[in-house]
Amino acid sequence: MNPADREQAVTDEVVASFAGTTDTRLREVMQSLVRHLHAFARDVRLSEQEWEAAIGFLTRAGHITDERRQEFILLSDVLGLSMLTVAINEPKVDGATEATVFGPFFVDDSPEIPLGGDIARGAAGTPCFVSGQVRGTDGTAIPGARVDVWEADEDGFYDVQYTDDRSAGRGWLRTGEEGEYRFWSVLPAPYPIPHDGPVGDLLTAAGRGPMRPAHLHFKVTAAGYRTLITHIFLAGDPYLESDAVFGVKEGLVVESGKHHGGTAPDGSRPEGEWASLTFDLVLVTEPA
Amino acid sequence: MNPADREQAVTDEVVASFAGTTDTRLREVMQSLVRHLHAFARDVRLSEQEWEAAIGFLTRAGHITDERRQEFILLSDVLGLSMLTVAINEPKVDGATEATVFGPFFVDDSPEIPLGGDIARGAAGTPCFVSGQVRGTDGTAIPGARVDVWEADEDGFYDVQYTDDRSAGRGWLRTGEEGEYRFWSVLPAPYPIPHDGPVGDLLTAAGRGPMRPAHLHFKVTAAGYRTLITHIFLAGDPYLESDAVFGVKEGLVVESGKHHGGTAPDGSRPEGEWASLTFDLVLVTEPA
Repeated sequence: MNPADREQAVTDEVVASFAGTTDTRLREVMQSLVRHLHAFARDVRLSEQEWEAAIGFLTRAGHITDERRQEFILLSDVLGLSMLTVAINEPKVDGATEATVFGPFFVDDSPEIPLGGDIARGAAGTPCFVSGQVRGTDGTAIPGARVDVWEADEDGFYDVQYTDDRSAGRGWLRTGEEGEYRFWSVLPAPYPIPHDGPVGDLLTAAGRGPMRPAHLHFKVTAAGYRTLITHIFLAGDPYLESDAVFGVKEGLVVESGKHHGGTAPDGSRPEGEWASLTFDLVLVTEPA
Repeated sequence: MNPADREQAVTDEVVASFAGTTDTRLREVMQSLVRHLHAFARDVRLSEQEWEAAIGFLTRAGHITDERRQEFILLSDVLGLSMLTVAINEPKVDGATEATVFGPFFVDDSPEIPLGGDIARGAAGTPCFVSGQVRGTDGTAIPGARVDVWEADEDGFYDVQYTDDRSAGRGWLRTGEEGEYRFWSVLPAPYPIPHDGPVGDLLTAAGRGPMRPAHLHFKVTAAGYRTLITHIFLAGDPYLESDAVFGVKEGLVVESGKHHGGTAPDGSRPEGEWASLTFDLVLVTEPA
């Protein structure tokens, strides 16, 4: 048997070992994973030292992962697997807002905020009034939709990255009768993904940066519609072309308004600098 | 852009992000990894729930891994990546002993044993006399070669799997003037790989067993020769055709002698049951 045939024989034997998997989807996924993983190792002629380095990398990723840090999601993000999974599962629909990565910083039990309330709740940064409409692709307003929002503060950290158990820069609210939403937050800032672990070392070795352009996360849920998970990004951000996790889409980039004093859209009279963002969230009907 | 093109655009963007990697080998490996990983996700149309399950699997693997347990090596083993890496790096050479998986149970500082000594050192099992010659493919005997041996006891556990810091069932010795080696050990037994973690759950879900056929590990090192890492397996073992880690090669399977009392090859007179194994270890010359 020549070397290529011997290598193929290993792959064939492993693929065959999953032939008895009764869950047909699991069988399909595992057999495909084995074929692609083996094709990778064969294509690059993976050395034993590189195999050991990969085991060491995964081990370090596992050990740095805890309730506040998810290194495997970061790894998926910087390898573009997260955005590819979004592309596979959330195909673009004409007129609908595009989806992007969920990220590791969503929290299930964030506080409910009244329409027009403040999700910053102490997060540091320039106050920012965010508003828009939630509607379907046919233009139908969606009242009562749940809008979850979360963001980093002006220092680039989410609340859960602090060790003091604070809850800030996140919350959820329901849209009003015309599908409208509005809330105060802080102007998001660009930030590096956590890069003091193996994923950061990989980015450094690869000559890639860890920065993400400033963004505000949205998760929008409404009966009869596909859940939308997306960000809005700020026009002019220096990292729009080099997002470490490949999450930017042109349609998600908005111009922010810059203001000083005066009267905000909700009639309040902020002192000093404040900003405003307007962005409509257009959902796709869920097939019944 | 159609959905397939949108997905390809994600892959292209991620591959391009590694274009500036100055270590050309790292660039080659990472770009290939991205292409194959993305091809897998696209081929199976990876769902978001499956992506989450994969993140959860890796997280559990990381958290169960410690100094005594290496779940990522087990994962590599049961996916055949370990044996494929052996096949890529240790191609078969006519007349030479074939290599197989290293496994997670080697220990660097095992005790030195005199030629003819006992590596069992208290490990439970039927005494087994193991002997043979270390030589090159041209028949040249290799005196002074270092032979490292390690094995599970009759209960299927390596010393490091016990929590009492015992050292047993392992040791190393040097070959004699004619390249000969000999030592006492215990007859190895089939055993399951650690299967109370995510890798075990995967095997169960896939309808695969966790068993490895009985074997004795060898690592043979000699100046001027490629280091050989292999096992010897016992003929008749019920798991030879279904090794959980795909390590069995026909040329590594040997018949064991079964004895009761009498005189052993080293002139000793064991009481009760004992076994014997004879296996020559043939090394490949390392190119100068």
